[in-house]
Amino acid sequence: MEKSNWCRKSLLGIEELTNKEINQVLDLSKVFKNELSDVEKRSDHLKGKRIVNLFMEPSTRTRIAFEVAAKSLHADVISIAEQSSSLTKGETLRDTAMNIQALGADAIVLRHSSPGSPLFLSRIVDVPIINAGDGAHEHPSQALLDLYTLQEKLGSVKGKKITILGDILFSRVARSNFWALSKMGAEVTFAGPSTLVPKRFESMGAKVSHNLKESLSDADAVILLRIQHERQSSSHFPSLAEYTKIFGLNKNRSKWLKEGALILHPGPINRGVEIDSELADSSNSAILDQVSNGIAVRMAILYLCTNSTTS
Amino acid sequence: MEKSNWCRKSLLGIEELTNKEINQVLDLSKVFKNELSDVEKRSDHLKGKRIVNLFMEPSTRTRIAFEVAAKSLHADVISIAEQSSSLTKGETLRDTAMNIQALGADAIVLRHSSPGSPLFLSRIVDVPIINAGDGAHEHPSQALLDLYTLQEKLGSVKGKKITILGDILFSRVARSNFWALSKMGAEVTFAGPSTLVPKRFESMGAKVSHNLKESLSDADAVILLRIQHERQSSSHFPSLAEYTKIFGLNKNRSKWLKEGALILHPGPINRGVEIDSELADSSNSAILDQVSNGIAVRMAILYLCTNSTTS
Amino acid sequence: MEKSNWCRKSLLGIEELTNKEINQVLDLSKVFKNELSDVEKRSDHLKGKRIVNLFMEPSTRTRIAFEVAAKSLHADVISIAEQSSSLTKGETLRDTAMNIQALGADAIVLRHSSPGSPLFLSRIVDVPIINAGDGAHEHPSQALLDLYTLQEKLGSVKGKKITILGDILFSRVARSNFWALSKMGAEVTFAGPSTLVPKRFESMGAKVSHNLKESLSDADAVILLRIQHERQSSSHFPSLAEYTKIFGLNKNRSKWLKEGALILHPGPINRGVEIDSELADSSNSAILDQVSNGIAVRMAILYLCTNSTTS
Repeated sequence: MEKSNWCRKSLLGIEELTNKEINQVLDLSKVFKNELSDVEKRSDHLKGKRIVNLFMEPSTRTRIAFEVAAKSLHADVISIAEQSSSLTKGETLRDTAMNIQALGADAIVLRHSSPGSPLFLSRIVDVPIINAGDGAHEHPSQALLDLYTLQEKLGSVKGKKITILGDILFSRVARSNFWALSKMGAEVTFAGPSTLVPKRFESMGAKVSHNLKESLSDADAVILLRIQHERQSSSHFPSLAEYTKIFGLNKNRSKWLKEGALILHPGPINRGVEIDSELADSSNSAILDQVSNGIAVRMAILYLCTNSTTS
Repeated sequence: MEKSNWCRKSLLGIEELTNKEINQVLDLSKVFKNELSDVEKRSDHLKGKRIVNLFMEPSTRTRIAFEVAAKSLHADVISIAEQSSSLTKGETLRDTAMNIQALGADAIVLRHSSPGSPLFLSRIVDVPIINAGDGAHEHPSQALLDLYTLQEKLGSVKGKKITILGDILFSRVARSNFWALSKMGAEVTFAGPSTLVPKRFESMGAKVSHNLKESLSDADAVILLRIQHERQSSSHFPSLAEYTKIFGLNKNRSKWLKEGALILHPGPINRGVEIDSELADSSNSAILDQVSNGIAVRMAILYLCTNSTTS
Repeated sequence: MEKSNWCRKSLLGIEELTNKEINQVLDLSKVFKNELSDVEKRSDHLKGKRIVNLFMEPSTRTRIAFEVAAKSLHADVISIAEQSSSLTKGETLRDTAMNIQALGADAIVLRHSSPGSPLFLSRIVDVPIINAGDGAHEHPSQALLDLYTLQEKLGSVKGKKITILGDILFSRVARSNFWALSKMGAEVTFAGPSTLVPKRFESMGAKVSHNLKESLSDADAVILLRIQHERQSSSHFPSLAEYTKIFGLNKNRSKWLKEGALILHPGPINRGVEIDSELADSSNSAILDQVSNGIAVRMAILYLCTNSTTS
């Protein structure tokens, strides 16, 4: 593979990326997706490199996707999960990262509950930091795989209307997707109950809607967010039953969608809560495409960050 | 390795296998056992393939054996253990499996507490499902490695008398072993207290004995089952002390065995409960051979299922 | 790599090693450190070998260092951590080890709370046992990486004065370091409160000091030990605040050190307890060098033990 002219060592968020950089990730993702389709084509671009998955918050889905991506490039993967806390017990995040660097890591994939922790680490260590979700801030690899999937299905998202529906207030997925989609020329609507989708999001440049029918009617795609059961105690959040009653996507309400409008969801889905089975499994659903594409997109991210021209 | 003519994509149980299929697994196991004996001979039959260990019930022993088997074939192994529940939290088993398939898995090794869950998944996903134990139903890889070990020691099991001793009622090992042994022409006796070995097992074609001496006296091999401490509260189960007193295998009672009769146990053994140390470590014990053979047998299973002519 | 003439199959402790053996490990560590610096140079000395990390006590740091070391030599690594207790539940350590051997392990790296457990296992199984810390007895890989780091910085430790400061009484690191350093001709002082550093350590050949200033003033290097928070309830241990007040290393007290005196610490460090940040991050600190060197030293240990002339 020819030397990339990617000059960003860490991937901290989508907000800071140029359109050129976003396209660079997606173009390389396409190459890797093609390689993945055939064992013979696969090559060992990261052979001998060590990718450390540092997951300080529970997450199996994203961690495994990064693990599969890294192994597909023949990297060695070291997983440090929240549970195995003795590395981190009584130790600052800074010291943990410095130690991981000293162990010879070539990249750290970080999931952390504190917004900004990947930025913080990227200023301390020389090793690339890949943000795998930092609090309610960003989840860039998710947004890039969502964008990849949308482009694969819609051609381009330019001028397309995309509705993101659910608990926007605390969602890093909503934020990262907003940046990715709006940079690429899509029109983003945040939809959901007013407690979860405050009007002030309009200042970011998004539309805000508290009316499900309205938010669905001209959408080319709708990205559903997972309803977090544990958020039910929050004063912002209605009961699950109430949410489902007003904002759950079911067969009946899907008639409000344009024909062929896509349905995406970062997973895991709550069948019967934010989405009914008939829709999750329908031909309009791109949910499993997202999962598949996530491998190729994360391969591209890992490749670019460990081969940046600045490192 | 030449193309196999194995046409079963998933391994769900022994009951459904033909004798030809059982022999096919065992023959290939012998090839792999031979390869394992010499680092130079090993080849990378599953290079670039991804084996996902999905263990929804605690198990280290079987999980590690499959991991060693997969790595010995140069496959990538992804382990999802019950503890790391965020993949599976609030998600149906069906969705978990569809996601694992979308991640590019080439086989799923499933341990689950519900009988029939491997069959259920095999009807949903295209990726091979290998049953690593489903409730009290089957544990086919254990039965195949037990059969391999018995054949290695006895030549053939045809016409041989094999006693399976212990908590038969809830044992998937007993069920799978019964199918494997009886298909290959052995005569199987289920032995233990009447609460754990009901007479109705005779309808399967097994002999039933509640008398230890009788069940041991003409056996060519006895397969002991692990006594589950946690089962003591069950109304079926006597106290451990009572069980040991009546059915524990000790030096004295071993005189009831024919000379050279083999002792097997799926492990981990409870020394002093179902078996005394003198017997577990005696020359008649094939317990550690079972562990070793388990690698080669699982290599064969992984190889055949990921190279079936139907996939 | 030419055949080593290392004839010790297991690494149980430093006390039993000859100076020649210690030098052999350190010389090979240098070769591996050099290989590590360049992906192109790396070779696959342990390709196809299986290293089993059996950690019966929580430890992320040492476990990961051994995992990185083994993978750097292209070995397969199987991790069995205390949490995944089903292998070991109701099973003796002896049986666990016999099973791991039967699974085809080429070496077992053992962390265990009982002093002497690696020795015990080495007498039972044929597979090499590498002690990764056994109770308060020894932690040989830590001492070897400390010695490697000291030699790298000081040239030789012969005639050098090394102070080990902290909770000596229960420290396997202190014991292993004492043996390594004194064998190589250094003069070792154990320092700390009298409850943690009893006079009887003098019978080993160490100096004992309960006076921080005195113990620092002529030291060429000081090895700080981690203060275990959980030990506070012990009757031997003062409060953390009291310890820090009298024995914590801070900027002010660092003036008692000779210019250029090195600071080592096995990690993880408690900033503001046994050491202040200014010192941990100063140019005198070799703490991160220890972490880096730990990979090469453990590669050497794994290589030598799995290629010993006695196996």
